[in-house]
This record gives sequence, C-alpha cells and structure tokens, in this order.
Amino acid sequence: MEKISVAAARKPEAIGKQVRLQGWVRTRRDSKGGFSFLELNDGSSLGNVQIVVDGTLPNYESDVKHLTAGSSVTIDGLVKASPAKGQPTEVQATQLTVHGGADAEGYPLQKKHHTFEFLRTIAHLRPRTNTFGAVTRVRNRVSQSIHQFFQEQGFYYIHTPIITASDCEGAGEMFKVTTLDLEKLPKRAEPGQSGTVDYTQDFFNRPAYLTVSGQLQGEIFACSMGKIYTFGPTFRAENSNTSRHLAEFWMVEPEMAFFELTDNMELAERFIKRILGDVLRDCAEDMQFFNDRIDDSHTILATLQGIVDKPFLRVSYTEAVEILEKSGHKFEYPVGWGRDLQAEHERYLTEQKFNCPVILYDYPRTIKPFYMRCNDDGRTVRAMDVLVPKVGEIIGGSQREERLDILEQRMQEQGLVPEHYWWYLDLRRYGTVPHSGFGLGLERILQFITGLGNIRDVIPFPRTPGSADF
Amino acid sequence: MEKISVAAARKPEAIGKQVRLQGWVRTRRDSKGGFSFLELNDGSSLGNVQIVVDGTLPNYESDVKHLTAGSSVTIDGLVKASPAKGQPTEVQATQLTVHGGADAEGYPLQKKHHTFEFLRTIAHLRPRTNTFGAVTRVRNRVSQSIHQFFQEQGFYYIHTPIITASDCEGAGEMFKVTTLDLEKLPKRAEPGQSGTVDYTQDFFNRPAYLTVSGQLQGEIFACSMGKIYTFGPTFRAENSNTSRHLAEFWMVEPEMAFFELTDNMELAERFIKRILGDVLRDCAEDMQFFNDRIDDSHTILATLQGIVDKPFLRVSYTEAVEILEKSGHKFEYPVGWGRDLQAEHERYLTEQKFNCPVILYDYPRTIKPFYMRCNDDGRTVRAMDVLVPKVGEIIGGSQREERLDILEQRMQEQGLVPEHYWWYLDLRRYGTVPHSGFGLGLERILQFITGLGNIRDVIPFPRTPGSADF
Repeated sequence: MEKISVAAARKPEAIGKQVRLQGWVRTRRDSKGGFSFLELNDGSSLGNVQIVVDGTLPNYESDVKHLTAGSSVTIDGLVKASPAKGQPTEVQATQLTVHGGADAEGYPLQKKHHTFEFLRTIAHLRPRTNTFGAVTRVRNRVSQSIHQFFQEQGFYYIHTPIITASDCEGAGEMFKVTTLDLEKLPKRAEPGQSGTVDYTQDFFNRPAYLTVSGQLQGEIFACSMGKIYTFGPTFRAENSNTSRHLAEFWMVEPEMAFFELTDNMELAERFIKRILGDVLRDCAEDMQFFNDRIDDSHTILATLQGIVDKPFLRVSYTEAVEILEKSGHKFEYPVGWGRDLQAEHERYLTEQKFNCPVILYDYPRTIKPFYMRCNDDGRTVRAMDVLVPKVGEIIGGSQREERLDILEQRMQEQGLVPEHYWWYLDLRRYGTVPHSGFGLGLERILQFITGLGNIRDVIPFPRTPGSADF
Repeated sequence: MEKISVAAARKPEAIGKQVRLQGWVRTRRDSKGGFSFLELNDGSSLGNVQIVVDGTLPNYESDVKHLTAGSSVTIDGLVKASPAKGQPTEVQATQLTVHGGADAEGYPLQKKHHTFEFLRTIAHLRPRTNTFGAVTRVRNRVSQSIHQFFQEQGFYYIHTPIITASDCEGAGEMFKVTTLDLEKLPKRAEPGQSGTVDYTQDFFNRPAYLTVSGQLQGEIFACSMGKIYTFGPTFRAENSNTSRHLAEFWMVEPEMAFFELTDNMELAERFIKRILGDVLRDCAEDMQFFNDRIDDSHTILATLQGIVDKPFLRVSYTEAVEILEKSGHKFEYPVGWGRDLQAEHERYLTEQKFNCPVILYDYPRTIKPFYMRCNDDGRTVRAMDVLVPKVGEIIGGSQREERLDILEQRMQEQGLVPEHYWWYLDLRRYGTVPHSGFGLGLERILQFITGLGNIRDVIPFPRTPGSADF
C-alpha cells in the first residue's frame, strides 16, 4: 500500500495503483445507488481527488454517511480512470478510517462564499480554503526560487540580525525590543539629555530595535565573501492601515561586491523573470485559479508571461520626469525634477506609457539615502527602482558609495553622525570595492503574482496596527 | 575575458584560460627576481589562488609593491599549472587594478593569531578570516540542505510570525515589543490587576513579544497543507552568558500531519544524516580545516562520517534511566525516573555507553509541555530528543496531542487557560489528525559540525546579554 498525495492520485500515471490517501473531506455527495462521492484534499494541490465509497463498506452507514466538510480521513483504495469530465482519475475506496469529525453547525468553513475579511479572523482555518492553499503553495515556490536563483550563481545566504542597536537615524519607524518591566521602569540616577530610563538595566544595556533592513550588515559580507543575499523578516512600526503595508514582512536583499549599477539592474531583471517563470511553470493550476477567480480582469497569466518574455526598459529619472511633464496627463501630485515620484506617476509610466516593467535610475541625490553612490554630475546618485504595472515599485536598490570621504560628506549632509557607523566606514577604509545591491519585498511580489488586493492575504499571519492574532 | 571565482581558478580545468579575478589580497611576497606573489581570496573558497605579478607590469612599482593585506584588486591574467607544491594552479597577471588599500598600521586583521574574543569585536571584518569564511560557507550549505531536504519530500516552507501576542504561558523568557514611549508611558484610567500601563496605546493594542517557537502556528498549516516546515529567527530573553546560548538564533521546525512518533524519529534521523552528508561532500576543504585547526582532537570528520553511516539508537527514557542508575558512574545531578536528564547524563549515554547518536523517547508527562501526546500508560508522553556526542540534545520533538478532551485536561494540569488557545483547540475540534514535529537549532548543529566552542562564532552577529553590536 503506497501512501501518496492527492496531487499524485490525480495524475493518470496513478491509475491501477493501490494507494493510501490522507486528508480532509471537502464535500460529500450521496448517490441514490447506495454509494457516496467524497472530494478529498490534503494541501498538495488546488484540485481534490474524487473518492467513490461503496455502500458495502462495513462502516458505510456508521461513518461515511456522517462525514461532513472538514472531517479528516485515511482512505485505502484503487486509483481508476474517472468517467466524469474534468478529472482524469478517481479512487475506489476499499477502507476508510475517520480521524476527526467537524461539527457541521460549528465548523466556520461552510460551503459558501466567505469574505477575505472574515477569513482573516479565522487565520488558523483559512489555509483549508482554495485561495489560501494556493497562496501557500505559490509563496513556498517563490521562496525556493529566491534561494535557487542566488545559490546557482554562488551567492551565500546570510542571516543578518533581527534585533539591532543601530541608531538607524533617518530610517522608518522602529519597534523597540526590551526586557524592562514597563510597570516598574528603572530610572537613571542622574537623568541626562536622552531621557530618564536606565537602559543599563535592559537586556542589551542600551535601547534595541527590530531591524528595518539587513543591507548595511549585508555589505559587510559582500565585502568579504563577494556575493551574498539575506532573506528574512523585516519590520516597520508605521501606523499604516492600508492594503499595501504590514508591520512584519519578509525581504530579500542581495549585495554584490564588484557590481556596478548596470550589473545590479541586469541581476534584478533576471531575478524577477526567474521567479515569475518558475511560478508559471510549477504552480500552473494555482495560477489559473488566481487568473480566473481572483483577478477581475483575468489577465494575470498574460501579464506575467509578458514580463518573462520582454526586456525591461531602462529610463533615467531625468527622462522619466520629462516624459511625465510632456504627457499632458493630469496628476494629483506635481511632477518636477527633484521631487519624488508618486505611485500615480509610476503607474502612468509602466501602464500607460510603456506597458511593461521599467527600471528608473540616477535619482536626485537630495531624495535618496546617504549610502547611494554619487554620480559625477553632482546632482544624482546611482539609485534604481524596478516598477511593474499595477503594483508600482517592486525593487529598490543602488550602487553603494565606496569612497570614504564622499560617504562621510553625505552622512553629514543628511545630519547623521559618522562615528555611529564606524564599522560601515571601515569597509571603505580597508580594501573598499565598488558594490551594489537591492531589496525585494516578498509580499509585494506575491500580491503582484496572485492579484490579491490586500497584502494581509499573502502572509500566513499578518501583523498590522491593532492586530497580532494567532 | 571570463570573470571567474578564486575557487574556479584553483581547479586544474581552469589552466590555459584568460580570466578576470576580483578579491582581496591576503599576503604579498616580493621575489628577488623582480616579481611578486600575491595570495588572493574572494570568499569563494578557504584556499587562496597565487597570483604571479611580473615587474614589467606598468604599475608594478607604483601599485603592486605597495599592496598590503586587505587591499582589494582586479586582476586579469592567464591560469597556469603551478610549479609550487600544494596548489594545482597559479595566475600570471597581465593587468592589475587596485580598488582600495588597507593601511598596514590600522588594519585590524594582521597576519598573526587573533583570538575569537577579539574577532567578535570586529565582526564586520572577521568574515575575511579563514575560520569565519569557512563558517559562512558551511552555514550557507546547511541552510540549503534544510530547504532541499524538506522540499524534495513535498513539505511547504511556512513563515510563522516573529511578533506574537500569544500569552505563551510557561515558555521561556520573552522579549517585549512595543512602540510606547518609555519616557512617557501612558497609564490606564482605571488601573486593573494586570498593571497600570495602557496597552491600548501600543501598536498592537496589547502586550506583544518576540516568538520563542513557531510550532503552534506550524500545526495550523500541518492541519491543512499536510507537511510543512519553518526556518526563521527565534528568541530567548534568558540572561544566559554561556558558550551555548544566544538571545537570537535560527530554528527549523517541521510539522507533519499523519505522522506518529516513530515516523517523526525516522524523519529526524534522515534529516541529520542529510545535513552532515551534504556538508562533508560539498564543503570538504572547509571541513578539513575545522578538523585540523579547530578541533583539538582532530576527530570531526570521523565523527560526522560515523553518524552518517550508522543507524541511531532508540532508547526509551525509562530504559535510559535504568542504564544510568546501573552505570556505577558518579553524576553531579541525581538520576531517577521522573527527573529531567542533565547534559552529563546525555553525554554519558552518547559518548560512553553507546558512542553514537541516541533518540530518547517516551518521557514522563510531568516534565514535558502540554501539547505532547499522552501514552496509554498514564505516565509518559510521546516526546523524543535526539542526542549526539559532545553537544547533547540537538533535536527535540514529539507527537502532538490530537484529542481535544485530553489536551484541555493537560492544559489545566499545567495551569494554562484553554480559552487563550481557542484556535489551537479548534484544530482538534475540526478534522483533528495525528501529527508530529520537532525543532532543530541551526547554531547548535553548526557548533557540532565545526567544532567551534562558542556559539557566538557560528552566527554572523551574535546577540547576547549586553551585546547587540553591528
């Protein structure tokens, strides 16, 4: 008796095999002929396998006739070609064991339409639905593509720290991490400028935070191991209750020694194409589901395939501003050299002007962080953003400033204290090299791939303002 | 001109190729004949490639003769068979570009012995040393083995949450996560039993913590997707300043529906063997280094190969206690049925009694958590620990209690409030299945593999009491 998955039992190759299947009943339908049909799912594929249970089974009346949606079973049986349309196989049960029932009154996942809002309140059960099963499989596939893409090219996977004591001046809002008893905060004997709390009593002897990016630490490893990437959780304490923001999300950040901005762009383009190509090939059934059932315009498959097939456009920030200014399009936010681009501008470029992904590069130095490499024009830095239709910016990156004196000058321009970054500056003091990197938010690309409107639906347990359930 | 890695240039297959190499100079040695030898490393392998630079190069006097350890260079040249012993190839440079020097006075990594304690204070430079380059490559390889092992068997990679509001009663010490201003903590209008701080002003409207385990959330996905694993950061706020504890570490936690304890043991054994086998095969040079230069007894290679080759022993807790009691060995901590085993007991079993990994199972229910499945004897639960020589427990796991009534009873036994676990109990209410899982600490197995005495040396940026540098 071979134990196989539902996905395997649905394939014509399985026909003729005696198999054991284990999973959850999605539906039961009793036939007048004294037998029943079960739709069984075990998470291995979107589609179920149909189980035919004959009335002659000893526990047919006692067990099978009481099976409800959500019940768990082990089924032994023979895989046969199915006479029904749309499924190559079905399984004729020879034995059925019930592990656990699911009270039809109480079970929250009844066979009816549930809103995504409701399903978020039962995040412990939503992976049992078609949509969230498909999200789980696609998220898994994308995560593996990330590892495979970088590993095949000799990158090392680096675990940058989650808890950080870096000042991170200028970064986004951060969560504090502490072991102090908030009911009985220790006070400093002599209060100083920076407050009265005595952090020498805290776990790390100083204020500590959750990381907003592993980039700076990633640069440490690029400047010794050559090519590296991080892939881990990242945090923002911004009070943004939108469909595009999470307080906790997963980010990929490659960092490469001896890469200039054009190498960085080339890598980012291949990276996106690899992820999309893998998903289209290996999650075909799930992607068809997203195309047909989630995306109102039913264009996901065509859009993703188009991105895999066509080269990305490369447009300088300066050119992009000219295009926007000459467009005659009425934008809510003003366009002008030196201003940051808004989502509406990015969407105009990718959706209306070019209808393909665009890599914008060479942004004004005044609107970009200190670590981006200054161009000789004195006005721009070697930044790049990859924009895709519908989602906008999906990757942000840059060549890093490798010249010590210019880096220190940029820090001072932005009001940062170079001494706080002594180790980061050391990388420029000792054997500095041109290097580049970028960041991709896993949930952003999953929204793009699945067409799901709310980012809370592409992560298992979303953390947002007021919500840290499960 | 093909850009290749130092690792590739060291292989005989490279002989005859015109190549470009980019990396950092480890040493320079000038020959009386008017040429120089450079040892170049780029992170791709433990060993360097030797570069021969002829005095006829235009920048020989101006650049090459000033190269110091840590300088970064690009070298074009021809790969040749090396006349020197111990290296199959060398590279005859035709062009050399210096990117950045490294002041010989200031550069902390001089060619002398540095203690691991000192290197921890320059964690931004230590990946440039042989030991930490090797640790980085082995850590990367192990991380990939983890993914490959589970993916090949149809497991899904699940990202369980880092920030959690679960009460986690009875778990280890936890870090608090907050956005409250500790200098101006908001107070509740009507102070209640649980304190005066007004958590409705906090980001999540309640106290929140850093996770100590993804197991309970992993069970959610096992009970829908079948077989899953987590691999992510985990936290303990225990004030343990030892060579075996980190406040932040990476943990792997597989969780499988329809797995009983014996299936769990079998998976754990194959998992350990797979990781060790991959590292021995793919990191041979690095492992030889750990064997010869890190492990005082020079037995790492033999030990790991022995573990790959031989079956693990399975011994019940009850048998183990009998063995220890009859051993005649004088232990510091008393042995007796119902007491937890100490490291000295575990080491006696794996090192002196059996000299191989041992899986202990069926522990007393009084010393194990509520979620472990009760055996019919009324005294034991289906727990298992995998013990290995020198390190002791490397994996802990169990079959989970899938029976709702017994689980609730166990919670009450241990003083937990079942209502706080409503969603966890729902998994037993609706389609409950036998299931099992275990946890492996990445840094523990890396200590075992590398022989490094201090766990702070197998993670890029260790977090320990009083220390969150870089």
